[in-house]
Amino acid sequence: MALSIAYLGPSGTYSEVAALTYGRWRSTVAQMEVPQLCPCPSIIQTLRSLAAGQAEIAVVPVENSIEGGVAATLDTLWQLDNLEIQQALVLPIAHALISKAPTLTAIQTVYSHPQALGQCQQWLEQFLPQVNLVPTNSTTEAMGALADNPSLAAIASERAAELYQLPVLTCPINDFADNCTRFWVLSRKSTAPAADSPVPSGCLISAQATSLAFSLPANQPGSLVKALQVLADRQINLSRIESRPSKRALGDYIFFVDLEAPLAAAAVQSALAELADLTDVLKVLGSYPILEIGSS
Amino acid sequence: MALSIAYLGPSGTYSEVAALTYGRWRSTVAQMEVPQLCPCPSIIQTLRSLAAGQAEIAVVPVENSIEGGVAATLDTLWQLDNLEIQQALVLPIAHALISKAPTLTAIQTVYSHPQALGQCQQWLEQFLPQVNLVPTNSTTEAMGALADNPSLAAIASERAAELYQLPVLTCPINDFADNCTRFWVLSRKSTAPAADSPVPSGCLISAQATSLAFSLPANQPGSLVKALQVLADRQINLSRIESRPSKRALGDYIFFVDLEAPLAAAAVQSALAELADLTDVLKVLGSYPILEIGSS
Repeated sequence: MALSIAYLGPSGTYSEVAALTYGRWRSTVAQMEVPQLCPCPSIIQTLRSLAAGQAEIAVVPVENSIEGGVAATLDTLWQLDNLEIQQALVLPIAHALISKAPTLTAIQTVYSHPQALGQCQQWLEQFLPQVNLVPTNSTTEAMGALADNPSLAAIASERAAELYQLPVLTCPINDFADNCTRFWVLSRKSTAPAADSPVPSGCLISAQATSLAFSLPANQPGSLVKALQVLADRQINLSRIESRPSKRALGDYIFFVDLEAPLAAAAVQSALAELADLTDVLKVLGSYPILEIGSS
Repeated sequence: MALSIAYLGPSGTYSEVAALTYGRWRSTVAQMEVPQLCPCPSIIQTLRSLAAGQAEIAVVPVENSIEGGVAATLDTLWQLDNLEIQQALVLPIAHALISKAPTLTAIQTVYSHPQALGQCQQWLEQFLPQVNLVPTNSTTEAMGALADNPSLAAIASERAAELYQLPVLTCPINDFADNCTRFWVLSRKSTAPAADSPVPSGCLISAQATSLAFSLPANQPGSLVKALQVLADRQINLSRIESRPSKRALGDYIFFVDLEAPLAAAAVQSALAELADLTDVLKVLGSYPILEIGSS
């Protein structure tokens, strides 16, 4: 049976590119059928369909180098208890301006996901200062409407333009050339694939990471510093810290930290034991390799 | 001359409620004319119009208790050097479902800002599981379209329903009753109002805060913990820490921290002197009272 991979659809999203990349690799490694892609209408539903057993794998964006953390991914993972990160994928992002407009001046409206609009903001201000910017649920949601109306444009991947058979006016239009999105590949805890998969060609494993999430006891000044000190004392480096509201009260947070060390390391094990006493709830989201796509 | 206040428009947004609240207070305190409200099409443009001298005050959302930090506010403040926080306002948020639909079952499409859609997600899943959710640039952007089509609805404030003379089907529909948004009131550095304004009636000053933003030198493991330790050593409590990408590379961040202490405190002054050596760029965004609206 083919592996099923849930992701934020519809076809042509960057999540689909990440899901395809992972799927091709898994099918090569395991000499199995090409995986079946299962597009979902939101990140929340992507993760829930994995948790409910409707897919074997979910691929979700967790952080973009320009727009920052993806709140829906972090908040949903905090709520679900049976998922585990298997791998991180870093995908370079190149945004294309897609339209049947004969020239830029004919464009009156540009559709895209708010993150993509944010990543092209300076370009839009310079070249299309008068257009109406309309946020959509995904970069490809509005693609269907473009064929009929040359005053409309969308910002999406070149792959999306190919899929919808629409012309690319210019690419890349992202304000920062070094634009990457990090995705997490997740499975349910019981269905973990083999840990020692070979590295796919064209990719580079840049590091082994462990991701934690924790909440802190209420009204204890300095409790965040104490928790971070546990890691610093053991020379465990943090590659990232992100706070998300606990949704209980303004000023009450959940912290997501990525450690540059595998879970099995003695220092990490001893840090976790100490963190258990300092935190209110402590979750290990996974320990996994980071794959950079397009590097070798 | 009336004070001009820039905010994220159009009329009826929560930013407008915050701007009105601040404006009424200032006009009472200073016995001046009622301020002139200047709606702007985005948070970035709200802050830029203040920086460029087109308004005397800007009121922008910085954090919601459910959806978290407002990236546009933090990123723009990091870029602009001549602005200063004068005050924080905490506003309770109650979302209304606004529509000419005779019943919930007649609704096919719901418009709102992505943050408001996120804050009503469970309610929407329970009561309107089949509708099409369409993100907009502000909670009120789609209000104009509702009058003509009873299959459309919007999520916005009850004030917005009044302004657009549309019926409220149900309110509040936010998933968490304790839903608040914190706003910052900013001025240019040279035009600071008097520091000792009296507290408006119906409001409570809950604390005095100082907000900092800093970047850290590259490739120095443990540098974040060192910076936070400077504050912990002096018993200065952090009420919030938020990371935003520096936009230089994935994994390179700017940190925004709120201290529960005034800038003039000796401990804060000594911490800042030490932080200057540990950080790459260090900015003091302001030192200001926090006002809770609707408390007394």
